[in-house]
Amino acid sequence: MTADPRYGLHRHVSLPGPLALDSGAALTPVEFGYETYGSLNTDKSNAILICHALTGDQYVASDHPLTGKPGWWTRMVGPGKPIDTERYFVICSNVIGSCLGSSGPSSINPATGRAWAMDFPVLTIRDMVRAQAMLLDHLGVERLKAVVGGSMGGMQALSWAATFPDRIGAVVVIASTAKHSAQNIAFHEVGRQAIMADPNWRGGDYYGDGEAPAAGLAVARMAAHITYLSEAGLTEKFGRRLQERDAKTFGFDADFQVESYLRHQGLSFTGRFDANAYLYITRAMDYFDLAEEHGGMLANAFRATDARFCVVSFDTDWLYPTRESRAVVRALNAAAKHVSFVELSSPFGHDAFLLESPELNAVVDGFLKVEG
Amino acid sequence: MTADPRYGLHRHVSLPGPLALDSGAALTPVEFGYETYGSLNTDKSNAILICHALTGDQYVASDHPLTGKPGWWTRMVGPGKPIDTERYFVICSNVIGSCLGSSGPSSINPATGRAWAMDFPVLTIRDMVRAQAMLLDHLGVERLKAVVGGSMGGMQALSWAATFPDRIGAVVVIASTAKHSAQNIAFHEVGRQAIMADPNWRGGDYYGDGEAPAAGLAVARMAAHITYLSEAGLTEKFGRRLQERDAKTFGFDADFQVESYLRHQGLSFTGRFDANAYLYITRAMDYFDLAEEHGGMLANAFRATDARFCVVSFDTDWLYPTRESRAVVRALNAAAKHVSFVELSSPFGHDAFLLESPELNAVVDGFLKVEG
Repeated sequence: MTADPRYGLHRHVSLPGPLALDSGAALTPVEFGYETYGSLNTDKSNAILICHALTGDQYVASDHPLTGKPGWWTRMVGPGKPIDTERYFVICSNVIGSCLGSSGPSSINPATGRAWAMDFPVLTIRDMVRAQAMLLDHLGVERLKAVVGGSMGGMQALSWAATFPDRIGAVVVIASTAKHSAQNIAFHEVGRQAIMADPNWRGGDYYGDGEAPAAGLAVARMAAHITYLSEAGLTEKFGRRLQERDAKTFGFDADFQVESYLRHQGLSFTGRFDANAYLYITRAMDYFDLAEEHGGMLANAFRATDARFCVVSFDTDWLYPTRESRAVVRALNAAAKHVSFVELSSPFGHDAFLLESPELNAVVDGFLKVEG
Repeated sequence: MTADPRYGLHRHVSLPGPLALDSGAALTPVEFGYETYGSLNTDKSNAILICHALTGDQYVASDHPLTGKPGWWTRMVGPGKPIDTERYFVICSNVIGSCLGSSGPSSINPATGRAWAMDFPVLTIRDMVRAQAMLLDHLGVERLKAVVGGSMGGMQALSWAATFPDRIGAVVVIASTAKHSAQNIAFHEVGRQAIMADPNWRGGDYYGDGEAPAAGLAVARMAAHITYLSEAGLTEKFGRRLQERDAKTFGFDADFQVESYLRHQGLSFTGRFDANAYLYITRAMDYFDLAEEHGGMLANAFRATDARFCVVSFDTDWLYPTRESRAVVRALNAAAKHVSFVELSSPFGHDAFLLESPELNAVVDGFLKVEG
């Protein structure tokens, strides 16, 4: 272990489980790829769990081992940052179902000695959270100071409050929702169909020869990527500007900058992500409906916890618009919980939570410091 | 020819051209699949041209020969309807670039005796309009009482006003725009990439053996279809309702109704549309920027015409939102033209122009009768 809190520890553990899943299946073993930053204090009261988004990973503040790029939330996590690795013991674990070291379709099925592929059990957000709790047990963390997440990470944070109400002191939910809407499901379904239409997908059994359904995955990523950006943001960034050649080609190359940007987003994604993992994680998100898990009333999901909540939305986020955050806030109010809510202004749509946002940093910083 | 004005005439003509295109290429011959309804009066003053949308066709008020379904705008076009086939001579022509009888990538390249495929020249909206004017010459129609179109049809209607300012008396533009935005281009690019990623696409040369890139085209259609519906409309129509089996399957079948609806939309589309035509027409739409064709000032596009304009938008249309229609109206005002504008309320998003809308019918009816 390095003592330098700026660097995560590329950690991996395989726990025997079994982990009981919402589908009725049981997962064993349960593998975790995870990073920790900072140190657990003596009374074990300074642990913060960060939950990542659909295509995120545990490298929240560490260089990504495949791309070499800096962590995806170094603006928020690090020494002196709102999630201060010199004060807090920060944990970020690859969700189960994913492909960066935690159990997922690309990991080994002990029953066959080969990759699970589509024999991997279908998961829910709650299953991901139960797995995280298992990891915390292993790490000796009984109670979290806070659980923090944006987008799918926010769904996990909400599910934490509902599933382990006594194990959390605070919940930060950013650019997220308590349920996936019909439009959310529709976009994900397009992505899944793009992957499964790729002949290289072969029912998910593509791990043997390295010919993965990259073309389908790239299309899935492109479609999803549009939903992460606002129309105004796209217009500001690209408008109708052409590529360098400065004239229409009257062909089918990427004439517009926005086209080549999207193609790049699609292609670069295939180098770091597994297509089957994309199927499993989008499915878990589409299944997510926290109210449904609690008798159809969202407030019921929160009654058992004493955690404080901080809910943040962005005004140009059309994937999980502010009204979805307001629905969470109303439910928390109905359950008489401590909740602060803010809608921040940003031109960048859903992706705003990952980008430079002094206001977001101030909100998270202030909220976490209240309990000090 | 049948005398019954309720039925269109499945007409086809091949004109020698050549048609000079914006790309610099020339198209010859220029084939037209088109329908006419009603009769041209003796002073040839009652012709109305209807321009169809991306995946529309000439069967505006006639049964579709492939699907057997009624025409796509029978609510608007027919005896006693706002576009009254007992009063007007109604023409609807398949746009060039498409696949229902007009010249397009699936029609025969006379130089080779085989389908054009990707050797077909890339088109613009203005090229489609120039071709329509060539057809009108052939039909002996010098001047249109009106040109009417929704979505891409509205782009053609605007282009008519700019390209043939003396040949039109009125212009009806519904749920449309004077330029494709970065987000519009992005969604189309996803569709094109889905088609071109399908191994059956083979650079567009798939006509020989009947193995068309149906899977890619279906994904393209699914992605586009989401943009035709409002989030609220999708929620109202499907919400998170499950298929009949009434429980999650924890698999990758279509669990949610919105999934099976989208899959059906994608699959059924491939039976009536050519993938290369989809590439060409989306390209033409993405190239569309009427201001750019007129020195960067949209008002300049309209200065030469004396036509009256009627511009209609729908409040839940996020593909071509009301602000795009307002931009057209402002330009028309700047050019001192007669223009009436209305934003209609509908839960159905962009597709509203094709659905039951008494308000839309009343607007079009009243606007066309003014000159009556």
